[in-house]
Amino acid sequence: MKTIKPLREKKNTAILLIHCPDRQGILATVTEFLNQNKGNIIYLDQHVDRQEKIFYMRVEWELENFAIPQDKIGEYFDTLIGAPLQMYWRIYFSKSVPRMALFVSKMPHCLFDILGRYTAGEWDVDIPMIISNHETLKPVAERFGIPFYYFPINKDNKAEQEAAEIELLRKHKIDFVVLARYMQVLSEDFVQKFPNKIINIHHSFLPAFAGAKPYHAAHQRGVKIIGATSHYVTSELDAGPIIEQNVTRCSHVDTVENLVRKGRDLEKIVLSQAVYKHLQRKILVYKNRTVVFN
Amino acid sequence: MKTIKPLREKKNTAILLIHCPDRQGILATVTEFLNQNKGNIIYLDQHVDRQEKIFYMRVEWELENFAIPQDKIGEYFDTLIGAPLQMYWRIYFSKSVPRMALFVSKMPHCLFDILGRYTAGEWDVDIPMIISNHETLKPVAERFGIPFYYFPINKDNKAEQEAAEIELLRKHKIDFVVLARYMQVLSEDFVQKFPNKIINIHHSFLPAFAGAKPYHAAHQRGVKIIGATSHYVTSELDAGPIIEQNVTRCSHVDTVENLVRKGRDLEKIVLSQAVYKHLQRKILVYKNRTVVFN
Amino acid sequence: MKTIKPLREKKNTAILLIHCPDRQGILATVTEFLNQNKGNIIYLDQHVDRQEKIFYMRVEWELENFAIPQDKIGEYFDTLIGAPLQMYWRIYFSKSVPRMALFVSKMPHCLFDILGRYTAGEWDVDIPMIISNHETLKPVAERFGIPFYYFPINKDNKAEQEAAEIELLRKHKIDFVVLARYMQVLSEDFVQKFPNKIINIHHSFLPAFAGAKPYHAAHQRGVKIIGATSHYVTSELDAGPIIEQNVTRCSHVDTVENLVRKGRDLEKIVLSQAVYKHLQRKILVYKNRTVVFN
Amino acid sequence: MKTIKPLREKKNTAILLIHCPDRQGILATVTEFLNQNKGNIIYLDQHVDRQEKIFYMRVEWELENFAIPQDKIGEYFDTLIGAPLQMYWRIYFSKSVPRMALFVSKMPHCLFDILGRYTAGEWDVDIPMIISNHETLKPVAERFGIPFYYFPINKDNKAEQEAAEIELLRKHKIDFVVLARYMQVLSEDFVQKFPNKIINIHHSFLPAFAGAKPYHAAHQRGVKIIGATSHYVTSELDAGPIIEQNVTRCSHVDTVENLVRKGRDLEKIVLSQAVYKHLQRKILVYKNRTVVFN
Repeated sequence: MKTIKPLREKKNTAILLIHCPDRQGILATVTEFLNQNKGNIIYLDQHVDRQEKIFYMRVEWELENFAIPQDKIGEYFDTLIGAPLQMYWRIYFSKSVPRMALFVSKMPHCLFDILGRYTAGEWDVDIPMIISNHETLKPVAERFGIPFYYFPINKDNKAEQEAAEIELLRKHKIDFVVLARYMQVLSEDFVQKFPNKIINIHHSFLPAFAGAKPYHAAHQRGVKIIGATSHYVTSELDAGPIIEQNVTRCSHVDTVENLVRKGRDLEKIVLSQAVYKHLQRKILVYKNRTVVFN
Repeated sequence: MKTIKPLREKKNTAILLIHCPDRQGILATVTEFLNQNKGNIIYLDQHVDRQEKIFYMRVEWELENFAIPQDKIGEYFDTLIGAPLQMYWRIYFSKSVPRMALFVSKMPHCLFDILGRYTAGEWDVDIPMIISNHETLKPVAERFGIPFYYFPINKDNKAEQEAAEIELLRKHKIDFVVLARYMQVLSEDFVQKFPNKIINIHHSFLPAFAGAKPYHAAHQRGVKIIGATSHYVTSELDAGPIIEQNVTRCSHVDTVENLVRKGRDLEKIVLSQAVYKHLQRKILVYKNRTVVFN
Repeated sequence: MKTIKPLREKKNTAILLIHCPDRQGILATVTEFLNQNKGNIIYLDQHVDRQEKIFYMRVEWELENFAIPQDKIGEYFDTLIGAPLQMYWRIYFSKSVPRMALFVSKMPHCLFDILGRYTAGEWDVDIPMIISNHETLKPVAERFGIPFYYFPINKDNKAEQEAAEIELLRKHKIDFVVLARYMQVLSEDFVQKFPNKIINIHHSFLPAFAGAKPYHAAHQRGVKIIGATSHYVTSELDAGPIIEQNVTRCSHVDTVENLVRKGRDLEKIVLSQAVYKHLQRKILVYKNRTVVFN
Repeated sequence: MKTIKPLREKKNTAILLIHCPDRQGILATVTEFLNQNKGNIIYLDQHVDRQEKIFYMRVEWELENFAIPQDKIGEYFDTLIGAPLQMYWRIYFSKSVPRMALFVSKMPHCLFDILGRYTAGEWDVDIPMIISNHETLKPVAERFGIPFYYFPINKDNKAEQEAAEIELLRKHKIDFVVLARYMQVLSEDFVQKFPNKIINIHHSFLPAFAGAKPYHAAHQRGVKIIGATSHYVTSELDAGPIIEQNVTRCSHVDTVENLVRKGRDLEKIVLSQAVYKHLQRKILVYKNRTVVFN
């Protein structure tokens, strides 16, 4: 299914994400660099972690009239500013559409939510593939016209299958991976190949109820609020940098089945909001925590 | 697209919804009637509005072993209890699947959310048709395998087109209608044919910002929270009994476009939660307010 | 400071709290017992835990015109209904004002919130004493005219001091204890003397961040939401039955100091809402979980 | 009652609040001005309203080592930057403690909340007076050791009494006024003397239910969420710039009395959060909307 209609005019901008040791004048230095080269700034946000003494910044400017050719911006920036100020920086261009791979298992709610947004033109993204360890959701992929790859995984074939998955991701130039209720733990090796490029949704308010069956655990504990957490995947299970969380009320009348049902609505919205922030290049990661700009 | 898998075993139960003038002993009378006839109660909730002196009740029991034949329950109940106690009551059977018509215009987010749930087997409902005043979402209907009916509406043909729509609804034995961001006001005549059977989603926290362009109005007023409201449609615009509302935070950084984007997530979840309560037969209406059981 | 004005007319009612093995007809039996004896029911709520097969109920009725003398209600109820149905039940009378002891340490926000409500007449409670392991808040107690008892506690004197506290609570016929940010763990012996009668506020969204310094832990983990939890104290630290929880958003801009500040507002409201439910006799505990009626 | 203990070390900083027509380089200009004069920036946030083309900024820096004497900063800034860039700007110094007057009527919950925070040292503020149109809360003022002024108001004496109040505020050099559930509309004349310096709490989610008896109106309308709104007072009733809002869930079981009770907790927290933002100099007003920095 083709997207119905893009929801907005395509911008032609560059986005710079920066973090570096804090010192006086960084903000002025960066904005002057853009101003002097006729870069019209349309977004600027910054944050200083005064405890860690780290400066974070996201700036976006229009490329039209910008004096430095697009393919030279990185080089110029690094030479003039990035390297001297010991910056960790990344540059992105709004015209370049990110490529996302979806990993799913049997539960379709997050998948439907993402494909609905994609088809509606809410997101500026390409989805060249859906990968699954089960065939259950193949019909959904087909109806939305997205190639579906089936990689059944067991103890014996896991390393081999993951290698094939990674090969496929590489071949299709996938920029990042979304685990849309993918119920299979990725190996440390897989995870380390995509640092801060794998987004997971965990069906609890982390760090409460990490691991398996969080709704059963929540019911057992008698909590009055349940949650969902989207985070980047690291080699430690459910312990990566948190991107977004949300919660909803529950009570003694809620069975585990009710919690699962209420939780589905949380999970899909929280995951999609995290993916949206990632697509907007609004997330910076430092020491297992995120800066998520507005 | 066929539903992937029903999410739970089908129950075989009867559901009784009641409201009547409050007096001593109603609850005991109803539960005794069920107990004496071997109706195993699996759900009971009640509410007394002490100001209006109205008693509300929802009770659900297993039909297996129930002494009264299914097609006689209504008659027996009315004769023995309903009529003597001046009850307004309705009976529903879990085996009978409600038939829902969707009305849409151009925005797909609520439609995708509903069709995703339907296909995933979250809801026990049939959707025999999607009706629209635009052709925009026809491809979505086709991909989900649901007949799409196009009724363009203007000032001159409105009465005629609505008559045709009503005819279609009648012919297909539609039980209730969901307006999934249908941007056309239904005539009073249409509304009165489906009392408390048309569910709308309004993109504001009613009664604030009733009518057109609520996100523009919210931005203009500088609110710090936006909302969405699902309600039964009555002849007065955006003034029917409220079923469900939810809100999310916004701030000075949010443009109207941002509010629209944040609002979409609210709208689709609030509408679907209202539809779910309706499908579960958990809503009673009295004097333009709802009782929504847990 | 005398209470300014009671906020409402004093009712003259009895409240019955029940839990027992579920079976058909309990609700009818209890309501008939009240109806037959001319007890006008003004509140009734019930819940069945179908997994554990336990029936829970709260019913409140007017004592005026009730046929059974107040001091005989318990006996009659137990003989006719409670014992035959293996009920665990408690009866309370609205005219009898509960007596609450407050335990505090150095932080005043929960104490101020409780004393403000008390003085404003929001709650129907007596507060005959404030107990503390520090003298910091003595001036607050004095200004509100409530006796303040100072029990400094260290490893060596803990058993002895707790014995003196218990003696004091007994002497003043204290019904229940509220730990309003009391930063001293009660001994198992103390706790067991007041089962489901000690209400604590923990400054995290339990079970996340149990134990010391939860705001530091939350900041370290990079959560996007913080919470507070009110629970009955059991011998296992921060693991008792949860009464109420609430949360608020935070982000990368929030330092630990900010989290502490935001958390104070959560803590005081969550604790006071839990105390209010307890005062209303709306909480039942079973297997380390609560039923909290509306 | 003296404050128990200041909660933090007193900073020695200057705070600059700015709004002006947006153009390239403002941020760089301001931060360079501070950097060149050895002003160590400890807070910086900015916002551009791209629709209105207005730039907003809050910057805070340490005065120690700052090259310009404190009493000359305003003059220098205006000459070098403010006037040339057509800025509306204000400067504040953290050592200068704002003076707040409280207006109350009969309801004490907001008053207790504010006085509790004040006494606990949560806020860096002086409260030289409480003004009321009733004597009800005089005992509260006395216990907290704050002068209480009684100005009974009726149609005939309103102009005269307000004149006396204004005189009193002037005499005591009051910086801003907080209406803590003050149930008397201030005259247009009064309001215009304190532009963006009178903070009110309205007991509804504005713009829904402006005016009298909002909880009755909310109950009548059958909303599922109630709210409270803090705003600067303007000459139009309940229509001033919104500072903060919050909401809580309600349902069919809630009587008007319940809504009033739940609402009290919202009102006091929302009002105090708005006052805190005002005290922190984090609010800018433009065209009846606020920018509230984090």
